[in-house]
Amino acid sequence: MTANPLPKTPVTLLGLGAMGTALARTWLAAGHPLTVWNRTAARAGALTADGATAATTAAEAVAASPLVIVCLLDDASVEAALDATDLTGKDVVNLTTTTPAQARARAAWAEARGARYLDGGIMAVPPMIGVPEAGGYVFYSGARDLFDAHAATLAVPAATRYVGTDPGHAALHDVALLSAMYGMFAGAAHAFALIRKEDIDPATLAPLLTEWLTAMAAPHLTQTADQLNSGDYTTNVVSNLGMQTAGTPTFLATAADQGVSPELLTPYFALMRRRLTEGDPSEDLTGVVDLLLR
Amino acid sequence: MTANPLPKTPVTLLGLGAMGTALARTWLAAGHPLTVWNRTAARAGALTADGATAATTAAEAVAASPLVIVCLLDDASVEAALDATDLTGKDVVNLTTTTPAQARARAAWAEARGARYLDGGIMAVPPMIGVPEAGGYVFYSGARDLFDAHAATLAVPAATRYVGTDPGHAALHDVALLSAMYGMFAGAAHAFALIRKEDIDPATLAPLLTEWLTAMAAPHLTQTADQLNSGDYTTNVVSNLGMQTAGTPTFLATAADQGVSPELLTPYFALMRRRLTEGDPSEDLTGVVDLLLR
Repeated sequence: MTANPLPKTPVTLLGLGAMGTALARTWLAAGHPLTVWNRTAARAGALTADGATAATTAAEAVAASPLVIVCLLDDASVEAALDATDLTGKDVVNLTTTTPAQARARAAWAEARGARYLDGGIMAVPPMIGVPEAGGYVFYSGARDLFDAHAATLAVPAATRYVGTDPGHAALHDVALLSAMYGMFAGAAHAFALIRKEDIDPATLAPLLTEWLTAMAAPHLTQTADQLNSGDYTTNVVSNLGMQTAGTPTFLATAADQGVSPELLTPYFALMRRRLTEGDPSEDLTGVVDLLLR
Repeated sequence: MTANPLPKTPVTLLGLGAMGTALARTWLAAGHPLTVWNRTAARAGALTADGATAATTAAEAVAASPLVIVCLLDDASVEAALDATDLTGKDVVNLTTTTPAQARARAAWAEARGARYLDGGIMAVPPMIGVPEAGGYVFYSGARDLFDAHAATLAVPAATRYVGTDPGHAALHDVALLSAMYGMFAGAAHAFALIRKEDIDPATLAPLLTEWLTAMAAPHLTQTADQLNSGDYTTNVVSNLGMQTAGTPTFLATAADQGVSPELLTPYFALMRRRLTEGDPSEDLTGVVDLLLR
């Protein structure tokens, strides 16, 4: 006699863009009854061939399952899709990319309509969904009971990280990590530009950059966090603000010599100089964080 | 009977700042006869107690050894220190932080005085010198025969990476890696600023940032290098310029909501938009590199 597997939670998914479609495939593959809806219905075709049910309206899709996943273009699309649906008693998980403020407002809006609400920030691109070894994951914040009730279902497309009851905090973590990433990309673009006219192979520079950035990330980030927590920006400093600011003319002169615009470096250097003028040269670079706050 | 160890190359070191002193200690500890000189003589005291010879002039220091390591404040200090010395037949290794152009000019200047010249860019702070597990190293470029002749001696303070005969390329690699690092630091500062007024512990965010930046570095840098080499910026794109540019308003709105100045993000976003206007939305972000070149 074979034990019956536990029945899988029925899932409704609103939104079949590249990300929604990737998510849908993982729930289908895991055996969850899946109802899908997309503003333009044609997108559902391939999924229905694999066992999904295509709803003709968002209201019909929401009615079909206790768990409603939303992965649409933006917050306005979420309101437009959910506005004529009955959310009473539904568990709404919104994976649409929004600002933290939009996530908080959407949580209040959904809860006023009788739903539990969880917000998600997807730290992955569609090809990483359903591929655990690719390392993608989803930040979740909002209703803890909703997260706990559906932890296994939510873990099907990607690993989960719950970051608190504030429904804005998943989006805030998402934006914080991606913002930091664009900073790293900016620095990398400058580095590649510096060697563009030289007989140096970018493919030789790339692993050196990777190794250096990887080696510097953890010590710098840990140090910054510790100093922000203690309020003392002079502890455990190995290369201080005074010395580092004194080094910046070499970077700018090199950029000028190589014909590279310094525009991606100068804003940070300007904040280093400003902090040095206002503060203590024996500090680390942590004071720059405070200068960004209004 | 014990085999006699090979005699260690006598080393002269000019410059006893924090870095020079750290370097000196490793050669002393490894048994190299060491002559030191510093503009202000007092710095040599602790080293002479450990067996170094303090020269009273740079000329006397240079005369003492075949291998002359220079680690001074800047290029002008190097010229000032070496100008009245006899460099004939000397192997000069200049670890002073300079621009690539200064390194090239100093190489020609030293070679015109009868020396072989190697330039170095130190990818470490003083506490990492003599501590191989700390992961620091030194880029070298210039005279290959000099590098080969002294490879073992040069490897005493830190691992070595020879990057070609152009004496400017060690400095260029150094500046490229550090410039990229400041970009990453800028992104990190923005990320920490975003959560500064929230109930999120910076020490919780730090490892998430480290993990994300580390995961994103290699794929992005490898992709950028491959595209720069091929000239086709549309190959293997997982999140294209069009989609990524469409996402930037969410980052800027979040910054505004959190009271964070966007000044560290906007220059890169502006270049993304400019490339999108001029180019192909299906490209990756590689085109930003070209926009930096004048």
